[in-house]
Amino acid sequence: MDTVDETTSFFDTAPLLKDGSGGGPRRVVCVTSGGTTVPLEQRCVRYIDNFSSGHRGATSTEYTPTSFKYFLKSGYSVIFLYRRGTCQPYCRSLPEDPLLECFRVTDDDSCIQVQVHESHSEAVKTAISKHHAVGAISLSLVQSCVSYICLKVSFHDRLFQEILRLIATSMKMLGPSGMFYLAAAVSDFYVPWESMAVHKIQSASGPLDMRLAQVPKMLSVLRKVWAPTAFCVSFKLETDKEILLEKADAALKRYKMNAVVANELSSRKEVVILVTNSGKVSVYRDNKDSDVESPLIKLLVDKHSAHMNTTKLPFS
Amino acid sequence: MDTVDETTSFFDTAPLLKDGSGGGPRRVVCVTSGGTTVPLEQRCVRYIDNFSSGHRGATSTEYTPTSFKYFLKSGYSVIFLYRRGTCQPYCRSLPEDPLLECFRVTDDDSCIQVQVHESHSEAVKTAISKHHAVGAISLSLVQSCVSYICLKVSFHDRLFQEILRLIATSMKMLGPSGMFYLAAAVSDFYVPWESMAVHKIQSASGPLDMRLAQVPKMLSVLRKVWAPTAFCVSFKLETDKEILLEKADAALKRYKMNAVVANELSSRKEVVILVTNSGKVSVYRDNKDSDVESPLIKLLVDKHSAHMNTTKLPFS
Repeated sequence: MDTVDETTSFFDTAPLLKDGSGGGPRRVVCVTSGGTTVPLEQRCVRYIDNFSSGHRGATSTEYTPTSFKYFLKSGYSVIFLYRRGTCQPYCRSLPEDPLLECFRVTDDDSCIQVQVHESHSEAVKTAISKHHAVGAISLSLVQSCVSYICLKVSFHDRLFQEILRLIATSMKMLGPSGMFYLAAAVSDFYVPWESMAVHKIQSASGPLDMRLAQVPKMLSVLRKVWAPTAFCVSFKLETDKEILLEKADAALKRYKMNAVVANELSSRKEVVILVTNSGKVSVYRDNKDSDVESPLIKLLVDKHSAHMNTTKLPFS
Repeated sequence: MDTVDETTSFFDTAPLLKDGSGGGPRRVVCVTSGGTTVPLEQRCVRYIDNFSSGHRGATSTEYTPTSFKYFLKSGYSVIFLYRRGTCQPYCRSLPEDPLLECFRVTDDDSCIQVQVHESHSEAVKTAISKHHAVGAISLSLVQSCVSYICLKVSFHDRLFQEILRLIATSMKMLGPSGMFYLAAAVSDFYVPWESMAVHKIQSASGPLDMRLAQVPKMLSVLRKVWAPTAFCVSFKLETDKEILLEKADAALKRYKMNAVVANELSSRKEVVILVTNSGKVSVYRDNKDSDVESPLIKLLVDKHSAHMNTTKLPFS
């Protein structure tokens, strides 16, 4: 199935989603992950990218047997909208090139076999089995009675906004039970098509002057049109601590977010600050073996519960 | 071992390399692969990248049992200098996320096993076994009598030029037996450190004007200082057919390359044009199941032989 079919099929099950085994309306979160790119030429050779690895979104999605509370573990159904090639749920402990580094080929009685190295055995099994479980569940969704489901949808190039719009307008019927966890790093600047060089920009003629326009802020449209009653969490990343909280505050007010997660580039794996209308809370990881996503999501789930209790369903 | 140790160890075997089993001086090619990036901020959130997947360099390196003539198959020792995360030799027929798409986990008599899907079985076995063979050979190089060797060295960020310099100056002693096959897409423009924003550039204050400086042309230094007698092949990629050959010709003359491979973005997998002092030759792939790298390398090997016959060793 293609992206449109898969997403439509996912939402065709909305009655099931709204009447899950836990009682009450079923919670669905759309997690966006990885960064978007913008081309510098119409026949694109070069583009602007950003450092985002997709680690935050992938971790936040998982169901683990440990006490860590990510979205699937917290009873959410997840739509994981990720940039192709970025980190996937359950894959964060694998080496960069898992195929070449986790396996070896053994020649046993004229039978050539691929074996997993002992050191990576558990991580590889988890990544593969969870990946296939996700696929199987999303396809047999209507018939299934599983208590958690995850649909993975990938984007590349400029299709991110378009796919997010499709997901968001489909989630509209869930009202306040829907959540957006917008961890993807969306480009702020782009070159408009009409002012973009058609061919590869030539380097022979001295320095290159470029004027980049601001990307229209998608958060406004998401809040006003696509998902007016959903619980919306956006992310603000800065390298300058001095302006981080001020920028996060401004985003909270301007785009009417329910929460903004403020990260500073160098410390983002140890601490984030959750900014809401009721104040600012620093969220730390417990120790080096844990992460900041688990306590962050625990907080967000509580705030989402409160949001569901105080916000009317659009069709009720 | 780190990159410096591995590369030094590789060249410590130069007497062996120059006196291989084939008789005559041993040929070594440095294949560069993938693209380089340039940061837009000192505490880098954004950077300029290019489309290069590393497919050309990876394919050109391989040893295959077929009749295709890549470098290892043609008797060369290869130093494969690639951008982390780009295509590796023997991996081109794998899906984008091989770990998740090629494997399944089976539960057989309480023993959980990872199995390769039938459809990807051969590709996975080849990729893994060749990868480990490469590692083993590079580490036990001095003792080995194998007829072909490959050393993989990865780069990221701005370390490309530095590592290439190290490899090139070490290859100087090989004189005309050394070849450079510079398939990596090196950035043409960059923001000099002193004019670079320290922090993440803010999007609140309207459009962004950027002045990018030209990256100094490394090919001049490679030819003049690092590798004056090696056989040097550079690549020129354009999207505009009209200027491609003129640009390739200019590069041949300006940087005193022995050959320039001219590619046009849209047709680069079907045809390239080899530009040398003796003229231009179009190199086509035979059919859809073959590629342009095999006939290209066959031509280059012949031209390299002629170069070795007519160029004196620097120390002879």
